[in-house]
Amino acid sequence: MTVGTLVLLRHGESEWNAKNLFTGWVDVDLNAKGEAEARRGGELLSEHGLLPDVVHTSVLRRAIRTSELALHAAGRHWIPVRRSWRLNERHYGALQGKNKKETLEAYGEEQFMLWRRSYDTPPPPIADDDEWSQIGDPRYATLPPELAPRTECLKDVVGRMLPYWYDNIVPDLLAGRTVLVTAHGNSLRALVKHLDQISDEAIAKLNIPTGIPLRYDLGADLRPTVAGGTYLDPEAAKEAAAAVANQGK
Amino acid sequence: MTVGTLVLLRHGESEWNAKNLFTGWVDVDLNAKGEAEARRGGELLSEHGLLPDVVHTSVLRRAIRTSELALHAAGRHWIPVRRSWRLNERHYGALQGKNKKETLEAYGEEQFMLWRRSYDTPPPPIADDDEWSQIGDPRYATLPPELAPRTECLKDVVGRMLPYWYDNIVPDLLAGRTVLVTAHGNSLRALVKHLDQISDEAIAKLNIPTGIPLRYDLGADLRPTVAGGTYLDPEAAKEAAAAVANQGK
Repeated sequence: MTVGTLVLLRHGESEWNAKNLFTGWVDVDLNAKGEAEARRGGELLSEHGLLPDVVHTSVLRRAIRTSELALHAAGRHWIPVRRSWRLNERHYGALQGKNKKETLEAYGEEQFMLWRRSYDTPPPPIADDDEWSQIGDPRYATLPPELAPRTECLKDVVGRMLPYWYDNIVPDLLAGRTVLVTAHGNSLRALVKHLDQISDEAIAKLNIPTGIPLRYDLGADLRPTVAGGTYLDPEAAKEAAAAVANQGK
Repeated sequence: MTVGTLVLLRHGESEWNAKNLFTGWVDVDLNAKGEAEARRGGELLSEHGLLPDVVHTSVLRRAIRTSELALHAAGRHWIPVRRSWRLNERHYGALQGKNKKETLEAYGEEQFMLWRRSYDTPPPPIADDDEWSQIGDPRYATLPPELAPRTECLKDVVGRMLPYWYDNIVPDLLAGRTVLVTAHGNSLRALVKHLDQISDEAIAKLNIPTGIPLRYDLGADLRPTVAGGTYLDPEAAKEAAAAVANQGK
């Protein structure tokens, strides 16, 4: 028996993905390709009759616009919307705004991959006066300083995302709703790590493709009835995941 | 002393406004002009430093997209979103989908103006099997039949809108938030009628222009400190209101 259906959707290509820059909490928009990916994601929801009753997004523009475009495409633009900074992308610290290829060349592959994929090594913290710092951004004005990250590793993301999962998403699932979560590569990896009980080591190799809805049917224990869930377009997901793994190369 | 700031924004031109059709609860999209109006509305908010903390919309696409486009333009895309059918446009009954000019010619100016502007005479109810009926629309599935309108006059709109005002918008205002309400010609006329205590007769002549934010600062009695509020672009508002009054002519 399943208690609820969860659908994860990673935002499509952004202006900075295309430029190969570390983005993190910098609030860049989707580019035209990302907009098309979001609409295609919504069409896939519609084609599969997988119609969300509620959507949860981060407070970052690229995830918000992905949810809007996908829901308009699926005819579900009118459902309730919830947002939280706890669904934000990983904060990339001092790397925010830096080119991935240049960072790789400057620090070497070992350090680069440690920052990108190790579970518990965050990049150096961002300076308050860095042009890509979130200091003064009104959407984080109510966060006490100890909660507002200056950098994060994936372990940090798991820690700040899980309270939102338990307190806001799970109640929607238990109410029998089909729940769409529109978020980011690392906040979704954090959630998938929790759901599928993936080890700290194995999560390094897990990539979530953009724009392809990932369906999880959850049992009474709020764990997936099918490990890893089901992509609505499995072929495209396979190709896309391979491409993500090669970023920065 | 003001307790809160309310900003009303009527959606821009829709696909059916441009075709001169009665729309009501039919869920048509904005056209390109309407999209531009919505973005301009958001720029006006930003230029005036009038930044919403929360947005309330109807469950109709043209108001939802107006709120999305305006908030992205104002950099406030991340604020909480609330929606309700109680902010929907007036249900236009059997006139939904009909051409305004043809209706005027078929029924004569007196009947036409009675349906359009009388306070308490609704058009004939829409048939359940009318192609523009909302029967079966999932967004109204939880409304009991006695609540789901088959037609409405402005008095009906006031009656079903006010509970949302009192229960959902007022608490946001009392919490000190700047509240954006993105809705429709008649649901906003209903709200303005209440706020400015406009008589059943005088409301007939009040038109709200599209795409121009209307600011109300409310006192402790939750009534405007300035009667009629203040448009952020008063010149454009004057011209636009005159144009709305001539619709169907």
